[in-house]
Amino acid sequence: MARIAVVAGDGIGTEVVAQALKVLRVVLPEVETNDYDLGAARYNRTGEVLPGSVLEELRGHDAILLGAVGDPSVPPGVLERGLLLKLRFDFDQYVNLRPSRLWPGTTSSLAGVKPGEIDLVVVREGTEGLYVGAGGNLHQDTPAEVATEESLNTRHGVERVIRDAFARARKRERRKVTLVHKTNVLTHAGGLWARTFDAVKAEFPDIETEYQHVDAAAMFLVTNPQRYDVVVTDNLFGDILTDIAAAVTGGIGLAASGSINPERAFPSMFEPVHGSAPDIAGKGIADPSAAVLSAALLLDHLGHPEAAARVSEAVGAEVTARTPGSALSTEAVGDRLAAAVA
Amino acid sequence: MARIAVVAGDGIGTEVVAQALKVLRVVLPEVETNDYDLGAARYNRTGEVLPGSVLEELRGHDAILLGAVGDPSVPPGVLERGLLLKLRFDFDQYVNLRPSRLWPGTTSSLAGVKPGEIDLVVVREGTEGLYVGAGGNLHQDTPAEVATEESLNTRHGVERVIRDAFARARKRERRKVTLVHKTNVLTHAGGLWARTFDAVKAEFPDIETEYQHVDAAAMFLVTNPQRYDVVVTDNLFGDILTDIAAAVTGGIGLAASGSINPERAFPSMFEPVHGSAPDIAGKGIADPSAAVLSAALLLDHLGHPEAAARVSEAVGAEVTARTPGSALSTEAVGDRLAAAVA
Ligand SMILES: CC(C)[C@H](C(=O)O)[C@@H](O)C(=O)O
Ligand SMILES: CC(C)[C@H](C(=O)O)[C@@H](O)C(=O)O
Repeated sequence: MARIAVVAGDGIGTEVVAQALKVLRVVLPEVETNDYDLGAARYNRTGEVLPGSVLEELRGHDAILLGAVGDPSVPPGVLERGLLLKLRFDFDQYVNLRPSRLWPGTTSSLAGVKPGEIDLVVVREGTEGLYVGAGGNLHQDTPAEVATEESLNTRHGVERVIRDAFARARKRERRKVTLVHKTNVLTHAGGLWARTFDAVKAEFPDIETEYQHVDAAAMFLVTNPQRYDVVVTDNLFGDILTDIAAAVTGGIGLAASGSINPERAFPSMFEPVHGSAPDIAGKGIADPSAAVLSAALLLDHLGHPEAAARVSEAVGAEVTARTPGSALSTEAVGDRLAAAVA
Repeated sequence: MARIAVVAGDGIGTEVVAQALKVLRVVLPEVETNDYDLGAARYNRTGEVLPGSVLEELRGHDAILLGAVGDPSVPPGVLERGLLLKLRFDFDQYVNLRPSRLWPGTTSSLAGVKPGEIDLVVVREGTEGLYVGAGGNLHQDTPAEVATEESLNTRHGVERVIRDAFARARKRERRKVTLVHKTNVLTHAGGLWARTFDAVKAEFPDIETEYQHVDAAAMFLVTNPQRYDVVVTDNLFGDILTDIAAAVTGGIGLAASGSINPERAFPSMFEPVHGSAPDIAGKGIADPSAAVLSAALLLDHLGHPEAAARVSEAVGAEVTARTPGSALSTEAVGDRLAAAVA
């Protein structure tokens, strides 16, 4: 029986997670859920971001379903570093998985791209790079101030995420992996990534490979996103590229993500890419699709690929069936999806 | 009289620079040019990237016009670090200027964007950040390898480029500056950028400002590029964002750049954003527009704003007048532009 920790969070987080749970319960009736009150609201109330006891409780779950955390009242970095990144790092969620599909019926922001043509997944490294928080400020608030950020990359960390990308490509139709980095400028980290990529690809002779600089990849995601199948890249590049991929496949309202520890030594975390959107919170108009698609990634990770496919196909069909201009409520979308997967 | 060093470089670099010079000579007949043979061809022939004596000769010029350098035969990083970045750093070219305009007649890769609607300029920092080359590899080629890259940012470097962005915004119609960084994760460098931005903006009360995380900005450049006027950001973010901006404004074939030392203490360098494109080199089919637009930036920098405007308007008109499907030769485009500015 699956034990899921639910962190609904702030703003529309609570609204979309409710719908994701509704759908999840239909396909996995035996799921046990426990709610955790974390995020901006709790921080503002108590000053706590992620108490050690809560971290330990979360550890006892099979997965975490997160809505969104954040509010303009909280200084930048507090919840990101203290909650989201802390969980990614402490639970060794080294595969940050972000699929982008242009569903039939969805409008791409790109001219001349037909539904179905874009179907890519970014495997973003989740535990290293510039996200480790190594850095500092010297002579702060003086004209002599210096600020540093250090990107740390290990063979261990790079190899395991590249191997994961190849393994995922093998399960897909096109079987292609694109490495994205900036080897011509970031020669130290880029060298490690490129050499490791070459070593791993020798183990996967059936997979087509290519390399692209991050600036070129950002451009091609706009001019020719059809060319990608699996993209593997570092933490920061993955952050940027997945938002572009979301933009060209119907927008952030449909973008799901999983922060995954593939070995299941720790709970993995699944969340929509969008934020808490305080401007539309409480109105019941947020699109729960990304949260529901995140629940599908959760199902897949927990060994229910067939239920996962059912959920994501339902989202695709619902999106396709939408009448342009007439938006359904958050709850109505959730009801439709729950009915569709029943 | 202006003295321009010309580094035509490799591949299509030589072809497009010839056209840029043709146009430049029409509007600035008294220009003196000196050719410098640098790039992949020279490196492969002699092993030299940028001899000290050549660097000193370049220093004696008012500006550098560069075509493109690079070839697959040269290992990544050699020409980038040894030539392009060396010039940017040694000549303190701290303003890396990249305008993007959707000319009438150009097709955006975006659906629903009308010509004229996009008119933005990215002011990318050019001498700091992750581009400084600070980093290394420990235990290389072993399972214990660690690779680092360090981003170095100074108040000095950040403040001068932000101030430049505000000064440019003041000369534009919309008078808006967007700071792009990733303050919620890169809290050390992001803090410096954000605090410095706030300090400088107090000096420019007439300029509208906003802040965006780099991932959000990458997305908005695709979904709503009309919102930007002047964007100021760090070296690496600027590299990525300007390729997206190019992609949504007619592609890399129209993207010009200047690596500028605004004080003119050192020569500034002007080059198309595209590379040497070995696949189409020698065929006479490369679009010289980006090189010509780079020459326009050069003119502006050297104090000929009116000639600069004439050149860039000519490019805009030529692009507008193109018949879809019937490509002109590199030389024919150059001839048309030279005639148009005469
Ligand atoms: C909120 C932030 C820390 C996070 C990131 O940068 O990874 C977000 O942008 C994401 O992509 O999940
Ligand atoms: C070639 C490379 C060093 C360069 C950069 O990264 O700055 C290029 O991509 C650019 O944008 O001018």
